[in-house]
Amino acid sequence: MSKSALQIARAAYQPKLPKALRGHVKVQEGAATQSVADQEEIKRLFPNTYGMPLIKFEAADEAAQCPAMNVGVILSGGQAPGGHNVISGLFDGVKRIHPESKLYGFLMGPGGLVDHKYIELTADIIDEYRNTGGFDIIGSGRTKLEKEDQFEKGYEILKELGIKALVIIGGDDSNTNACVLAEYYAAKNYGVQVIGCPKTIDGDLKNEMIETSFGFDTAVKTYSEVIGNIERDCNSARKYWHFIKLMGRSASHIALECALQTQPNVCIVSEEVEAKDQSLDDIVTYIAQVVADRAAAGNNFGTVLIPEGLIEFIPAMKRLIAELNDFLAANAEEFAQVDKTEQRNYIISKLTPENAAIYASLPEGVARQLSLDRDPHGNVQVSLIETEKLLSEMVGNKLAEWKKEGKYVGKFAAQHHFFGYEGRCAAPSNFDADYCYSLGFAAAALIANGKTGYMSSIRNLTAPAEEWISGGVPITMMMNMERRHGEMKPVIQKALVRLDGAPFQAFAAQREQWAKETCYTYPGPIQYFGPTEVCDQPTKTLQLEHQK
Amino acid sequence: MSKSALQIARAAYQPKLPKALRGHVKVQEGAATQSVADQEEIKRLFPNTYGMPLIKFEAADEAAQCPAMNVGVILSGGQAPGGHNVISGLFDGVKRIHPESKLYGFLMGPGGLVDHKYIELTADIIDEYRNTGGFDIIGSGRTKLEKEDQFEKGYEILKELGIKALVIIGGDDSNTNACVLAEYYAAKNYGVQVIGCPKTIDGDLKNEMIETSFGFDTAVKTYSEVIGNIERDCNSARKYWHFIKLMGRSASHIALECALQTQPNVCIVSEEVEAKDQSLDDIVTYIAQVVADRAAAGNNFGTVLIPEGLIEFIPAMKRLIAELNDFLAANAEEFAQVDKTEQRNYIISKLTPENAAIYASLPEGVARQLSLDRDPHGNVQVSLIETEKLLSEMVGNKLAEWKKEGKYVGKFAAQHHFFGYEGRCAAPSNFDADYCYSLGFAAAALIANGKTGYMSSIRNLTAPAEEWISGGVPITMMMNMERRHGEMKPVIQKALVRLDGAPFQAFAAQREQWAKETCYTYPGPIQYFGPTEVCDQPTKTLQLEHQK
Repeated sequence: MSKSALQIARAAYQPKLPKALRGHVKVQEGAATQSVADQEEIKRLFPNTYGMPLIKFEAADEAAQCPAMNVGVILSGGQAPGGHNVISGLFDGVKRIHPESKLYGFLMGPGGLVDHKYIELTADIIDEYRNTGGFDIIGSGRTKLEKEDQFEKGYEILKELGIKALVIIGGDDSNTNACVLAEYYAAKNYGVQVIGCPKTIDGDLKNEMIETSFGFDTAVKTYSEVIGNIERDCNSARKYWHFIKLMGRSASHIALECALQTQPNVCIVSEEVEAKDQSLDDIVTYIAQVVADRAAAGNNFGTVLIPEGLIEFIPAMKRLIAELNDFLAANAEEFAQVDKTEQRNYIISKLTPENAAIYASLPEGVARQLSLDRDPHGNVQVSLIETEKLLSEMVGNKLAEWKKEGKYVGKFAAQHHFFGYEGRCAAPSNFDADYCYSLGFAAAALIANGKTGYMSSIRNLTAPAEEWISGGVPITMMMNMERRHGEMKPVIQKALVRLDGAPFQAFAAQREQWAKETCYTYPGPIQYFGPTEVCDQPTKTLQLEHQK
Repeated sequence: MSKSALQIARAAYQPKLPKALRGHVKVQEGAATQSVADQEEIKRLFPNTYGMPLIKFEAADEAAQCPAMNVGVILSGGQAPGGHNVISGLFDGVKRIHPESKLYGFLMGPGGLVDHKYIELTADIIDEYRNTGGFDIIGSGRTKLEKEDQFEKGYEILKELGIKALVIIGGDDSNTNACVLAEYYAAKNYGVQVIGCPKTIDGDLKNEMIETSFGFDTAVKTYSEVIGNIERDCNSARKYWHFIKLMGRSASHIALECALQTQPNVCIVSEEVEAKDQSLDDIVTYIAQVVADRAAAGNNFGTVLIPEGLIEFIPAMKRLIAELNDFLAANAEEFAQVDKTEQRNYIISKLTPENAAIYASLPEGVARQLSLDRDPHGNVQVSLIETEKLLSEMVGNKLAEWKKEGKYVGKFAAQHHFFGYEGRCAAPSNFDADYCYSLGFAAAALIANGKTGYMSSIRNLTAPAEEWISGGVPITMMMNMERRHGEMKPVIQKALVRLDGAPFQAFAAQREQWAKETCYTYPGPIQYFGPTEVCDQPTKTLQLEHQK
């Protein structure tokens, strides 16, 4: 592997641990826990892993005697900065417990467990990946561990390798499945523990006990770097509106944090759109009004942040898509006969008036995408919609109308950007490097103490690392029942942006000023070696949530 | 202005100067110079500024006596990291020469000179912008200073403000115009000197005396950071081919440097395509073959870098575009009558067979772009063509053919990126911060020594800053005659990628291995505070050129 100068320098970084994990560790158990909702149902589904106590680690005077143990690890789902540090923390943790402990990595995600594809992660391998981005040490994948035959296939290889515990690093769904697996192995008395780790750049796996998911910090800082650079360009050239879409499956945490970091003229928050039942036209009108007001002050430039999941949060768009899905599924043959140039009119003629009007208002490219690009289940592939171009085109049309009516005088030219892959595998910030390493280290301690169905938890994250609180949270504690594909399922509650939360409130209090004036802030690239106020700050989201 | 922690920390950075500029300065004049070509013609056009000697600054024991002087500065053309440092170096330079010297900045580019829009740049203003990216201190613009009435309008305000010299910070065209202006003011005996500074992220303003243009270093490092992140994602998820287009008007220096930094599977170099008379199909076949070979080894993922200017370097595409421009200009009315669904066939029926075949091979979207999106002069807007999508679509089609023929077994899914605005206004790297500050400081010394028609020059750039050689180069020395808009004009020779140059040779020697294996390197974000091997390396291009 050819390495950059930064990779080489960064390999030497020793991540910081909470004080309790630096020497000998003992367990302090809290009170029994309950799930956040649907307690009866969750308890019924998880008889062996429900109601367990919160775990907190404390420094001990002497080492607990613990035999060598074999541990397996899986990376599940989309990449997030710091995955390699969870694994190196886990490795160092199990080796500290006993030097003859072994760590196995299952390859390319949960599928590696089912298909028995794995490697032993030795010190040589681990040392190549410390403090690096990416999941390439063992790869990741999106296979869902949900079925009994998968659990049984997995158990075969776990038994063969003498693996005492499996650590699953993933988002809300993967951790839900980790808990189902923990329950299954416990019910079967297989003697295999399962521990989860909270990963996702989306930032939507968080709650009272999980302050943030790992990777969010590094990803939003990387996006904020390039957004800041674009804003500076915008404010120098003074001739473009930059429409920037930001990855994030459904929640708008990424867009909101980037807005707090860079102070753009507009940031759309999907959760607000839904709460206020805003239409696409409402959003377009809002942006166009900001453009027009700035133009009136001589400023024909600006920056707009858009969360990737927006379309599905617009209630009227959701209704349109639902009707389109049903209609096209029922009339696929007839639709296939319609001449290409007539498809749009055909669809308009068949939809209910409200949906027809919205469909008719969409730019041609998006309308075509909605009627043609469908997934194998016949559903619209919303993630393919270039929302940044959709909005800028509609804003341009609206401004053209206003110009005719004399309500707008200015020039409107747009540039488009979409950031996602640019930040998911960035080398972890000091925060994520420390946080992830601690998560992995705490997972090892949970295993040594015989725990299963727990998520590794590190809290008090706005304090210096030595003051962080480490422990474990029963995964069932975070669960409720939700409808998924027509069935009620136990799942970890997804954390959307709370409109009454401090981060959104801070944004809402400033956005009018940001829209009118030019208040851009330029965070610059993540720094690893400089002054602590530059290198070691958690996200604004975390800081604001903790102030409260 | 709300500032990020990095902005605040970075404001305190003191850029390094070459030793000769650190104390008292004296001038050493070299031999008389000649233009790189067309000597007779250039000499005739620049009677007052031709043949001047090279200037080198040396440390002096005592200060030359020099009265206070008023200086003007202009930022011209696209943004490049470090512009603010040229201005702060110039400011500190003129203040060192005499504390009562004044610096005026003309607003929003050369237009500010013509329209008499300016501000005085005081210490308070300068201190807000030290070591920051962007051109927002005075803005930039693309007005070309070419006409006598502009020169005269400019002179009015220069005279009014008592300005002795004007510094124009720009690319090859802006520096050409700076020289024309220097010649004009000299011929008129107006007593106003004009000095140029070599700016452009494109890296195409370089020659024997100008080793690199400023901003290239920071921009390519910013692009390489995100390309590296994408590569790491690519190598973790192992399911996408990422097609990444990189800004750079015509030369491929940016793509080549990014390739040297990140070692992608494919990098197209426009200059090679032109030299080898490659067709679009040749390029598509080359990429498809790399995809197929990797697929055969089980690797259905990869990264492809594409220079923005590619299309215009493909000789066959150039011929197609030329015929399309001529044909559509001559037959605009008839074409407007053709039904939209028939336009493609109509054009194919009218073109010469060779061009018709190429047009027919283009994906629908690009074909439409070529026939519809035209600039006010009726020409195709090549910069609007999404080359990254064009190539991936054609590669996908080619692979589908090969699959039918049994020559390819694999999955091909693509993601697209275009990076440009993300890097043009990044905070300057240590290299650019030092280099730009030195360029500005040297410009002040050239002015104090009565020079005009010179470009500020800092050389020996792979050595530590104190060993850099500072001085000035007569702009006429870099000129030759070229056809522009049908007329022969004196212009600074543009530096394209040399296929016999060390950077391209180093790339060519490794690209087969990079295509087959996965040799990605992850440069990470620009660091300002860490170990010198991380923070203070010049580009690979510069290092390789100097090794030679």
